Amino acid sequence: MERNSTNYILTRHTYYFSRQKNTNIRLTLPVVCFVWQIAMIILFGVFIRYDKESNAHWVETKAHDNITSDIENDFYFRYPSFQDVHVMIFVGFGFLMTFLKRYSFGAVGFNFLIASFGLQWALLMQGWFHSLDPQTGKIFIGVESLINADFCVAGCLIAYGAVLGKVSPVQLLVMTLFGVTLFAVEEYIILNLLHARDAGGSMVIHTFGGYYGLAISRVLYRPNLHQSKRMQGSVYHSDTFAMIGTLFLWMFWPSFNSAITDHGDGQHRAVINTYLCLASTVLTTVAISSLSQKTGKLDMVHIQNSTLAGGVALGTAAEFMISPYGALIVGFFCGIISTMGYIFISPFLEKTLKIQDTCGIHNLHAMPGVIGGIVGAITAAAASESVYGKQGLINTFDFTGDFKDRTVLTQGGYQAAGMCVSIVFGVVGGAIVGSILKLPIWGDPADENCFDDEVYWEVREPATHHLLFRI
Amino acid sequence: MERNSTNYILTRHTYYFSRQKNTNIRLTLPVVCFVWQIAMIILFGVFIRYDKESNAHWVETKAHDNITSDIENDFYFRYPSFQDVHVMIFVGFGFLMTFLKRYSFGAVGFNFLIASFGLQWALLMQGWFHSLDPQTGKIFIGVESLINADFCVAGCLIAYGAVLGKVSPVQLLVMTLFGVTLFAVEEYIILNLLHARDAGGSMVIHTFGGYYGLAISRVLYRPNLHQSKRMQGSVYHSDTFAMIGTLFLWMFWPSFNSAITDHGDGQHRAVINTYLCLASTVLTTVAISSLSQKTGKLDMVHIQNSTLAGGVALGTAAEFMISPYGALIVGFFCGIISTMGYIFISPFLEKTLKIQDTCGIHNLHAMPGVIGGIVGAITAAAASESVYGKQGLINTFDFTGDFKDRTVLTQGGYQAAGMCVSIVFGVVGGAIVGSILKLPIWGDPADENCFDDEVYWEVREPATHHLLFRI
Amino acid sequence: MERNSTNYILTRHTYYFSRQKNTNIRLTLPVVCFVWQIAMIILFGVFIRYDKESNAHWVETKAHDNITSDIENDFYFRYPSFQDVHVMIFVGFGFLMTFLKRYSFGAVGFNFLIASFGLQWALLMQGWFHSLDPQTGKIFIGVESLINADFCVAGCLIAYGAVLGKVSPVQLLVMTLFGVTLFAVEEYIILNLLHARDAGGSMVIHTFGGYYGLAISRVLYRPNLHQSKRMQGSVYHSDTFAMIGTLFLWMFWPSFNSAITDHGDGQHRAVINTYLCLASTVLTTVAISSLSQKTGKLDMVHIQNSTLAGGVALGTAAEFMISPYGALIVGFFCGIISTMGYIFISPFLEKTLKIQDTCGIHNLHAMPGVIGGIVGAITAAAASESVYGKQGLINTFDFTGDFKDRTVLTQGGYQAAGMCVSIVFGVVGGAIVGSILKLPIWGDPADENCFDDEVYWEVREPATHHLLFRI
Repeated sequence: MERNSTNYILTRHTYYFSRQKNTNIRLTLPVVCFVWQIAMIILFGVFIRYDKESNAHWVETKAHDNITSDIENDFYFRYPSFQDVHVMIFVGFGFLMTFLKRYSFGAVGFNFLIASFGLQWALLMQGWFHSLDPQTGKIFIGVESLINADFCVAGCLIAYGAVLGKVSPVQLLVMTLFGVTLFAVEEYIILNLLHARDAGGSMVIHTFGGYYGLAISRVLYRPNLHQSKRMQGSVYHSDTFAMIGTLFLWMFWPSFNSAITDHGDGQHRAVINTYLCLASTVLTTVAISSLSQKTGKLDMVHIQNSTLAGGVALGTAAEFMISPYGALIVGFFCGIISTMGYIFISPFLEKTLKIQDTCGIHNLHAMPGVIGGIVGAITAAAASESVYGKQGLINTFDFTGDFKDRTVLTQGGYQAAGMCVSIVFGVVGGAIVGSILKLPIWGDPADENCFDDEVYWEVREPATHHLLFRI
Repeated sequence: MERNSTNYILTRHTYYFSRQKNTNIRLTLPVVCFVWQIAMIILFGVFIRYDKESNAHWVETKAHDNITSDIENDFYFRYPSFQDVHVMIFVGFGFLMTFLKRYSFGAVGFNFLIASFGLQWALLMQGWFHSLDPQTGKIFIGVESLINADFCVAGCLIAYGAVLGKVSPVQLLVMTLFGVTLFAVEEYIILNLLHARDAGGSMVIHTFGGYYGLAISRVLYRPNLHQSKRMQGSVYHSDTFAMIGTLFLWMFWPSFNSAITDHGDGQHRAVINTYLCLASTVLTTVAISSLSQKTGKLDMVHIQNSTLAGGVALGTAAEFMISPYGALIVGFFCGIISTMGYIFISPFLEKTLKIQDTCGIHNLHAMPGVIGGIVGAITAAAASESVYGKQGLINTFDFTGDFKDRTVLTQGGYQAAGMCVSIVFGVVGGAIVGSILKLPIWGDPADENCFDDEVYWEVREPATHHLLFRI
Repeated sequence: MERNSTNYILTRHTYYFSRQKNTNIRLTLPVVCFVWQIAMIILFGVFIRYDKESNAHWVETKAHDNITSDIENDFYFRYPSFQDVHVMIFVGFGFLMTFLKRYSFGAVGFNFLIASFGLQWALLMQGWFHSLDPQTGKIFIGVESLINADFCVAGCLIAYGAVLGKVSPVQLLVMTLFGVTLFAVEEYIILNLLHARDAGGSMVIHTFGGYYGLAISRVLYRPNLHQSKRMQGSVYHSDTFAMIGTLFLWMFWPSFNSAITDHGDGQHRAVINTYLCLASTVLTTVAISSLSQKTGKLDMVHIQNSTLAGGVALGTAAEFMISPYGALIVGFFCGIISTMGYIFISPFLEKTLKIQDTCGIHNLHAMPGVIGGIVGAITAAAASESVYGKQGLINTFDFTGDFKDRTVLTQGGYQAAGMCVSIVFGVVGGAIVGSILKLPIWGDPADENCFDDEVYWEVREPATHHLLFRI
């Protein structure tokens, strides 16, 4: 036993000596963190201010606005949803990616890092595009801005799923910088110019984030990734950790899809629809997963991921009057499609299109996101005054101002156009950013050291324990 | 070492070859999932609609009802509690059952599956019994319906605890189908016909769920369960995972008991009472656990389970004016009784009554549920106008309509009657359902393969790691 | 292999036989739990009542107070924040301390125990000092009292971090009894007499708790702690468990700092500030952690702890108009200082000052707490009517009643004085309590058995698995 272990360690050291790549990030990582954080401070100093409802002057402005109670502060409408979304971003995405046997630190830790940077940059980018006050030149933020910043970050975390274990934290930060930037632009085009509705982000978050990550992964294709095959896959406990991520995402998805919808019935309905849709997805995921194995055994990969596809696919339509059985139908098909994606499409993408998608974001985000865009376009086009009520229709689709004469059919068209915009931004943006990330300066790991926390983390554990997962 | 491991694997394979039972669920599980989910879609299409507050017409109806602010939507009163309950159902119950060394996938995964099915079926069953609109023939759902559906599911998840590791997912789905059905009926009798109060479900959820599971487990008694003794019990990490479940249940129990109580002081009081009761339970659980060992060492089984008994026992009385010290007293005794249950009663049940109760639901749900029913009956009978106020008494016990002349003493009697109903439904229902589950068609595991995830899950891990837990 | 394992067990047993200390707590622990819990029940019976908003009479008093809607009940302003704080106390603190390879039960379990006792005692102590009704001699509690009780407990849990693995549960309970008592007094002096503002408790919670724990640890100095060196440090999975604690603390800190601030803009602003401050902390923590290693690798100890320092440091100023970039600046420096504390100051404290600080609470709570006190004093002194508005300034600093003529400069001085009070209470109180804990009656572990769950817990696992972490 001891000899084996010694041999093993030697072998392992040989790996480190033999590899060509330099994964030393002692210069680049601190520099990027410091410089970018200082830039954030300066830009926040110039641009970001409290909005009316978070400003100490509110005691006066609220009297002026005839608001009689503090409970009318937008804070109380949205804060519970915000906290749920926050949990999804940090625990949900972070732990979902801990499934690899030896990449939990990277999964949770780098997710933590890039989300923390991304949300600051998102407040600025989204502020400039959506809420820059023309008079003062300032961006006024409140709880809804925080939710939007978390949403924006979600796009980048989705992309991280495709390249998990194959990139350095510096690359992830660069990916996030550009990802947030692209996100703000496509979001501006889709929500403001096209005036599409997408409260839960099927298009702007999931479709964009999915294709952004897949395009980057394509550009960073590693033909010799099989050299780290021993590190791919899960162990028993890592699969259990990943279920923490899955469940917090699944449980809080109703909050995600309702966090920025209209006060009152809008938030209420988005919750009901998402809740039902996700329940339906679980059953069909289990069905397909069981069908895919000789003896009907279930595969944790499917349970961890495909059960969430329904939430993605209802991101656009959750606030619409899609009706409870409509939500169940969307979930029904998403569970099937997403699970089949893991079984058939992912291997195809890897072999034929050379897209190595560690977490299968194509099946969890890209495809369901596109489905969500289509569902949104159809349900928008099918909306009617009899179902929504006259004022309800106007409120739900925000047919006011420049858009007050828009018909539901036109709206459906613009929804579909929005989905195309998100795909184009994802694919083209990802291709460009991928090329930048290919530069040999970012400290990414060698093919044989992918999916291994020891490259970027001090791992204290004695090698003998480590050994267990290998022999 | 290597030889040992090979031998081990051979031995293990022999198990699989030698066993008589067929655990192949490749046909049954997908069929049940698909057919039932399609049935849900059809029934939802026929019966389920958005209620007034989640309907886009709300903008009109709220004006009609003189509601001036969106914050008056029931959504804002109940959504934070709903999300907490949701976490209890999926993370709480799911992770609480991960304590077995090699059944975490089944614990979290099957919990996920049956809860997702159960909540859909509960919306229908509870809708038919409680809120079917006679004019339209529709069930109108809102956030309170979602909470009630989660509550209903809780009853079945409790029952799962008794049979954990010994049944197939198909059996669990069948158990949930009948469990939800029985639940809706007993709930209708207890809450509507007897007009008992039971906001946190000591009777309708815990007592019913507990006895339902115990009765099923009795019918499915396995005389040779000792053959899988190597798989029973926990390992260090699985006990830590289980504490995630324990703590989320414990922390969010105040939300559970207050989720559907009256707006305002009702919800407020239920939270305070449950918070205090649970704190008290922890101390007496620790005391008894320490007393039960020679050197005063604590037992994780007690800490994981008995600390929660106070929440169960306050399910009925949480909204009453039981007073803070009253809540502490209930918690005090529940910690003692539940822990003693694990030490003395569980072994007795197994040996004498042939009830094999994997998670000890008798000590965590059945007994504390009965205590909760009794506490509820006594505190209801002792209620007075001086303590509650004239209108407060009417509101708390809903002495309106047909029940406006009921006295508190009568109410106490009906509370006690309600508890008996829940026991009868649990025991009789469980016996019948247990008999159905005994049919040799459900793919349940052989005695020597109980508590082993490998029966229903693809476990990727090399057998050598697995081995560690055996030698 | 088997022989090794036998040898190992023999060696291990020798430990137990050879040690001098008696860790049998079968008498003391149950007695303390029972007696104290009974005392709580009696004291609650005498003193604690529901407040107006959780009393069934509210239906009448609310009409009298011209409150038109139940949503105005303080419950709805604070309950979501309360639940987040509750999660921080039990899951956050509990799991943060699971990082040790073999002390997860003690971390989560004893945290659970002392928090459950502490919150009851805190309701009494804080009630007597802050809200005893002079007419009735009663303490009236509502949701804000529960939050304050959780806050008070946090101080003791921080102190637990310093002595983690080195004390018995009985000592922890004693530490909590005195800790809560001291807390209530210093809080009364700081908030009521000095009228300092400290909504998130930089001073009253973190500074006090930090120095309280460090002083106790100093008195309990163990010169031969190196004898349990094999048990110190983490393993891979225990570090992942600890990240659950880190993330729930990090995500919910905005709720912590806003839970008891003013309704409306006060809560809203505290959330925004804390959210931003914490994001900034993550980047500088990563930067310094990477700089501290030869090849730029990250250290989980830093990521688990220092990322939280920003939340601590904004505890006082979170509700002030510190402005978004101000919050980022505070976080920026806290990440640097806290991480450097782990690298340089902790070893210094241990070697020179003989303070063995298991979790590094000096770097996570004491230092950032002091920074928070200073930031609070400066921002208070710099407050102006132009920034806050006339009424906003009065509301934020509560310049009413006896304090209506106080200037912001004076306020700044009192803030600074408050910080000194918290340090003095921590150090002196900790020294005294430490002396009490030194009595040889509490069942604390021998030096060679520190950090080992087997001392106070039944650990079922076969020794061979255990062995893995040692060879």
